[in-house]
Amino acid sequence: MSKSALSDLERLAWLRLARTENVGPVTFEQLVGRYGSASKALAALPELSRRGGRISPLSTPSQDEAQRELEAGARLGARLIASCESDFPRQLAAVDPPPPLIWARGHVSLLHKPCVGIVGARIASAGGQRFARGLAGQLGASGQVVVSGMARGIDSAAHEGSLPTGTIAVLGGGVDDIYPPENAGLYDRLIAEGCVVSESAPGKRAQARDFPRRNRIISGLSAAVVVVEAELRSGSLITARLAAEQGREVFAVPGSPLDPRARGTNDLLRQGAALCESAEDVLRVLQQQRSIRERERPSYAVPPADQGKLDAAVETLRGEVEALLSPTPVSRDELVRATGAPAPAVFAALVELSLAGKAELLPGGMVTRA
Amino acid sequence: MSKSALSDLERLAWLRLARTENVGPVTFEQLVGRYGSASKALAALPELSRRGGRISPLSTPSQDEAQRELEAGARLGARLIASCESDFPRQLAAVDPPPPLIWARGHVSLLHKPCVGIVGARIASAGGQRFARGLAGQLGASGQVVVSGMARGIDSAAHEGSLPTGTIAVLGGGVDDIYPPENAGLYDRLIAEGCVVSESAPGKRAQARDFPRRNRIISGLSAAVVVVEAELRSGSLITARLAAEQGREVFAVPGSPLDPRARGTNDLLRQGAALCESAEDVLRVLQQQRSIRERERPSYAVPPADQGKLDAAVETLRGEVEALLSPTPVSRDELVRATGAPAPAVFAALVELSLAGKAELLPGGMVTRA
Repeated sequence: MSKSALSDLERLAWLRLARTENVGPVTFEQLVGRYGSASKALAALPELSRRGGRISPLSTPSQDEAQRELEAGARLGARLIASCESDFPRQLAAVDPPPPLIWARGHVSLLHKPCVGIVGARIASAGGQRFARGLAGQLGASGQVVVSGMARGIDSAAHEGSLPTGTIAVLGGGVDDIYPPENAGLYDRLIAEGCVVSESAPGKRAQARDFPRRNRIISGLSAAVVVVEAELRSGSLITARLAAEQGREVFAVPGSPLDPRARGTNDLLRQGAALCESAEDVLRVLQQQRSIRERERPSYAVPPADQGKLDAAVETLRGEVEALLSPTPVSRDELVRATGAPAPAVFAALVELSLAGKAELLPGGMVTRA
Repeated sequence: MSKSALSDLERLAWLRLARTENVGPVTFEQLVGRYGSASKALAALPELSRRGGRISPLSTPSQDEAQRELEAGARLGARLIASCESDFPRQLAAVDPPPPLIWARGHVSLLHKPCVGIVGARIASAGGQRFARGLAGQLGASGQVVVSGMARGIDSAAHEGSLPTGTIAVLGGGVDDIYPPENAGLYDRLIAEGCVVSESAPGKRAQARDFPRRNRIISGLSAAVVVVEAELRSGSLITARLAAEQGREVFAVPGSPLDPRARGTNDLLRQGAALCESAEDVLRVLQQQRSIRERERPSYAVPPADQGKLDAAVETLRGEVEALLSPTPVSRDELVRATGAPAPAVFAALVELSLAGKAELLPGGMVTRA
């Protein structure tokens, strides 16, 4: 993948591949890596999924459908940015693997500034919202762009506090999906003064399963994530876990044990999150942080002459790999060790199984039985 | 020092030595160690302080005055317990060095049960007091005796919550010094159902300088200390620091950054204190804790025949040791290294200087210029 911009045709192919059934970011990265482009990967898809054991063909948007998504985005004044392009946010590109494509509406330049995520409870206390607003304002005054999820409560307060200095809302639905409805005014200001980002197609309404991907982008854009008020087992704690997995600093705002909204943040502190009482706590740590470590992209490239050999190796391996999978996540490296087979063959077998809906390739190199 | 009970005469000598001007617990331990008994140490005092550079004799209570303190305590039904006696609390005996003597009024047997300290702000929130009361009750129900300082706010709530199961109040004044006045009812219940402890003489009113010694006993009696609400630079944080120095577990209850009473506890968390949201947090750690490590008492004993030799060594060393002291604490071990002299001579020189008011021997082996 070159670091320049994609051609119009290859951009369409990226979009079609990214929107193909059973193609998550891991499979996407491996396919484009193996075949050298999304167009070539698309051409190989039917055969790969069939070999993985899938009977009906995978649903892939047509060229026209992809074109219509591009036009819908263009009408909103939104930009589609591919992870291989030079204006993809650097912090987000360092995630393993990054989302293949994001839509961005508003001040796209904010994506290139240092960012801190602020997330928290939807049903937040007045004090919690006041704290989030103040923290966002202080971080903004210190040159940090504040990233959040435009949800009720803490998220909205974080955006409000940082509108004058720079704020990014990451949505689960499309960049035009205004939810909750009472945030229509905030959304307008986000478009006018900030930036709205989404991995989903314009016009798409958010569904429950979109939120983990949304949360992954909130933490992925950010060098640090601050959790302000969170109950146990809440979405904010998922964002915190994703941030930790991505190597980002996790901060939690302490609260009284008598307040159930402090359970989650106090639990994060117990687990080793840094304590945040003010913007200084965050800025102090960020100053000490090394610059972003560029992710060393694994090379999945296979020369055209060797594709047949790889396919043959997968043929004898696929059943063994499938049998090794279980609902408990296992790392790809462990599967390589267990089979004793070359890594490219094991990875290719996993891609076939994932296209067939038999395996799920998780970010961070883990695999489960689907 | 034998582990049995003192004779009546030696008990009087302990009291007189402990109440002598410029004799703190470090000097006390070294003197009784060197001379083998408080009576012999008392006899050596005038010469030692004169050699240290003191002109007027040290003020030491007479035998009659000490006897009157014993009688005052007896009238209250209080007991005087010396650190060398077998019924001195074991946790407190492990402190370096322990207070030479404590007065105890009420159910003295509580001093031999496992204890947890709960301390905090005098001007506490209603929620903080409710939390302290509940925590004390839960710890009590699990067999822990709760130790606190009978101050307003958190201390009082901690005592109230643990009166039915066992509570110890450590006072800065004598065991009959009821302060604040509104705690008269609580004091009566503490005497009837709990225990009141003090290092001060009965009848003595607390002064500001008595509180660090009081705090040292609160943490010294306890395997763990929980701080519930504390502003920055408050007495509760001193207790927490003493507890950490004594090797006791320090817990802090988190609170909102918007509440100034959480500043101190959140800061303790930042410094590595364990987070306390409930009694389970404390009990879990206590279960994992090893039993009290008996303190290995340093031997300061010098055979009578060698006392003269030691005095002569001190004579050539005292000026050098004094010159090495500054307002910044230095360890006794460092002074031994710096002078290259034998440790007993350096320690004896320090005792002379402290009796003369020129050095201050701090718990934990540190020394400052007085």
